[in-house]
Amino acid sequence: MNPRSIATVGAGNNPLKMGAIQALSIVKDGYKGKFYPVHPTDEEVFGYRAYPSAAALPETPDLVMFVLPAERLIPVLEEFGRIGTKRAIIISGGFRETGSGGRRLEEKLLQAARSHGIRFLGPNCIGVINSEILLNVTLLPFAGVKGSLGMASQSGTYVTQTLPYLADRGIHFSKAISVGNESDINIIDALEYLGEDEQTKAIALYIEGIRDAARFLAVARQVTARKPVVAQYVGGTAAGARAGSSHTGALASPDYLVDGLFKQAGVLRVDSLEDLYYQGWSLATQPPLRGRRIGVLTNSGGPSTAVAHTCSRGGLDVPLFSADLQEEIKKRIQPQGSAANPVDLTFHMDASLLGKTLPEMIAGSGEVDGIIAHGVMSSGFMKALFPHAREIFGFASEEEFISQFSSVVPGLTEVPQNLGIPFLLSSFFGREDRCTALFQDLSLIHI
Amino acid sequence: MNPRSIATVGAGNNPLKMGAIQALSIVKDGYKGKFYPVHPTDEEVFGYRAYPSAAALPETPDLVMFVLPAERLIPVLEEFGRIGTKRAIIISGGFRETGSGGRRLEEKLLQAARSHGIRFLGPNCIGVINSEILLNVTLLPFAGVKGSLGMASQSGTYVTQTLPYLADRGIHFSKAISVGNESDINIIDALEYLGEDEQTKAIALYIEGIRDAARFLAVARQVTARKPVVAQYVGGTAAGARAGSSHTGALASPDYLVDGLFKQAGVLRVDSLEDLYYQGWSLATQPPLRGRRIGVLTNSGGPSTAVAHTCSRGGLDVPLFSADLQEEIKKRIQPQGSAANPVDLTFHMDASLLGKTLPEMIAGSGEVDGIIAHGVMSSGFMKALFPHAREIFGFASEEEFISQFSSVVPGLTEVPQNLGIPFLLSSFFGREDRCTALFQDLSLIHI
Repeated sequence: MNPRSIATVGAGNNPLKMGAIQALSIVKDGYKGKFYPVHPTDEEVFGYRAYPSAAALPETPDLVMFVLPAERLIPVLEEFGRIGTKRAIIISGGFRETGSGGRRLEEKLLQAARSHGIRFLGPNCIGVINSEILLNVTLLPFAGVKGSLGMASQSGTYVTQTLPYLADRGIHFSKAISVGNESDINIIDALEYLGEDEQTKAIALYIEGIRDAARFLAVARQVTARKPVVAQYVGGTAAGARAGSSHTGALASPDYLVDGLFKQAGVLRVDSLEDLYYQGWSLATQPPLRGRRIGVLTNSGGPSTAVAHTCSRGGLDVPLFSADLQEEIKKRIQPQGSAANPVDLTFHMDASLLGKTLPEMIAGSGEVDGIIAHGVMSSGFMKALFPHAREIFGFASEEEFISQFSSVVPGLTEVPQNLGIPFLLSSFFGREDRCTALFQDLSLIHI
Repeated sequence: MNPRSIATVGAGNNPLKMGAIQALSIVKDGYKGKFYPVHPTDEEVFGYRAYPSAAALPETPDLVMFVLPAERLIPVLEEFGRIGTKRAIIISGGFRETGSGGRRLEEKLLQAARSHGIRFLGPNCIGVINSEILLNVTLLPFAGVKGSLGMASQSGTYVTQTLPYLADRGIHFSKAISVGNESDINIIDALEYLGEDEQTKAIALYIEGIRDAARFLAVARQVTARKPVVAQYVGGTAAGARAGSSHTGALASPDYLVDGLFKQAGVLRVDSLEDLYYQGWSLATQPPLRGRRIGVLTNSGGPSTAVAHTCSRGGLDVPLFSADLQEEIKKRIQPQGSAANPVDLTFHMDASLLGKTLPEMIAGSGEVDGIIAHGVMSSGFMKALFPHAREIFGFASEEEFISQFSSVVPGLTEVPQNLGIPFLLSSFFGREDRCTALFQDLSLIHI
């Protein structure tokens, strides 16, 4: 996770090959260590001097990444073993997941690595991201943001193909580890590492199968005592088990066994990719929820009722506020609004009231253990309105329209200070709304 | 829903008032009927001649929309009654939802309307959208797209504030009706109307309380025999019931009663806004699912396993394909892919294969009743890659980069023809990816 130098084998200059794209991530995402492409014919790869073999390298790289066909891999791994490299990432597929021939090849790979003291990720994985040192060996850019959600995954997709999706939603990894076939390093090792990593405040796991339930339980219990762990387990049905087997050769267990294992280990099970990341990110950025009392704040009655109901169905309380607190709130909202909890401002564009003043007031009252606010918005709403307003009011551009009304329709200029309790936001707008962007970025600052 | 002329009362030229913004929707979203603003002082509203009173209008408008303070409403409504207007939309709040004084005022309003034979929506609603005639009286633009999802809602937010959110996701209303306090026209009437509307292929309901369970059951049974109905019911918990009461004065019933009512009526209950719209839109655009057998197609093993597992947990089957079908599929995919079902192409950028060729082959086999595909993508992925590739390959712009690789990395140029079974897509990219946009727009063409 912290190499001073990285060699790649199988990364040339052809931008349509996985190896090249992954090597680009190493050289373009900000990594400050040495980069040594090993290539049989090219003298340069992306402007970096290339070397014909491990033996030709000017120093022993800390880490080597292989993107070679499976059948050519072992001799090259042994070359690196001979020059003293001790860590490898093996992207190549074509091993256990393909059947008995691949299984034998994978066993030989493991023996070769062990005989040289090499620990490795994969094969059939997508590698790692360590945002702390801006290291990314995976397919897609990780945006250079240092997040707080640790990810360990038996699917490479959950580590790299989701990166643009996550960045759009303000979600960023601390470290992410794709374990692939888990021939050597497995998801329990990755969980243990993330459990000890200071940058990681919560951990998300994508699991198709757990090989060593006893060790998972022991490690997960230690980790969940320190930080929250959420997991999506997809091997518990016949279809999931079959699919996982041809994906990473995973050996799956029935849902009820894994439910019990997670419960004993204190791992929170989720049922979708969305929940894995959203719940993981909430847990990674917010203080722990220390009770069941939730304050609900919205700019309209539908979301108010739906959020209150959803809290209640999920076992949380949405308690009536005290008369004193309701009086304080009533001074700030329109007469047709509601101050009881949920607090419903009715349609209202004062983002500061909904996103700062009222949350601070309610958190300060001590009457709730967490706050959910829906509808903090400014530029997103004005942009949505612009098609109607442009001609009538003679604005040349969307920017002019938004800036014109920014004094009348105040955006959130400050963010709530030290609420001390979890504060979750819901909005119909993404980062095109400056309030959404502000709160997404705030969740990074608080890390 | 189909007025030839609309008058507004309470809509002036101040663009920060609800009335003005809603009147803008009428004049800007494409409605071809007459628009008559009634205003005490302004001679023009948005360039339309304004009239000082109902009596001064050149003709009797089919519909009048009121955005007046509650206490001033009844006399003006009566003026319209005297000139013969028979339909009204009452946006104004301040009635039953505010307590006993408001309740009495609402009773008087209903009596006044009845004495003139006026049927009305509201009070305390956001009005209607009828995309068939490009009529929108609500707050936000509806994008002028003629969709197939009918919406009836006790929350105005679900009808108008969600419009940009829905358009981003390719979801469009046929008709949408905000019923507010349901003083006269209620959600059962709206359901009955949408049930008979030919443009509406499926119906979504947001419900805080049902006043007449027997009539709901009778009407819903008739409607669900013709088209699917999904409903989010949020009044079934103490917190939801209290919030609904202060929102629209709704009288709520416990969850278990409404669960039973929905089951008897054939209404599909959902637990979130996302499910309401996503499931509603799927049902509104796809043929009925006639069996439990699902084909799963993806570009990577994680989503493959997760989708198969989710299907299986939800009571669907992901059957192994026949040897013949697997042979046919294997001819088209990479050797390390899987053809068993799920079909996993492994990482692959051939959107036509994943989005057209294989779906047509699998649907044609008769071995499944529906298909889910994940990872059909082109420009979204290339855009995500661009930050890495721009300098190395010397591209000046994202557009140049994407067009350069479009021959090598083919996007989907055609769409699957007449699969005859439901075909759902999942992607990490939104409309910034041309495959996503193409399929979203295709779902409109098929309507």
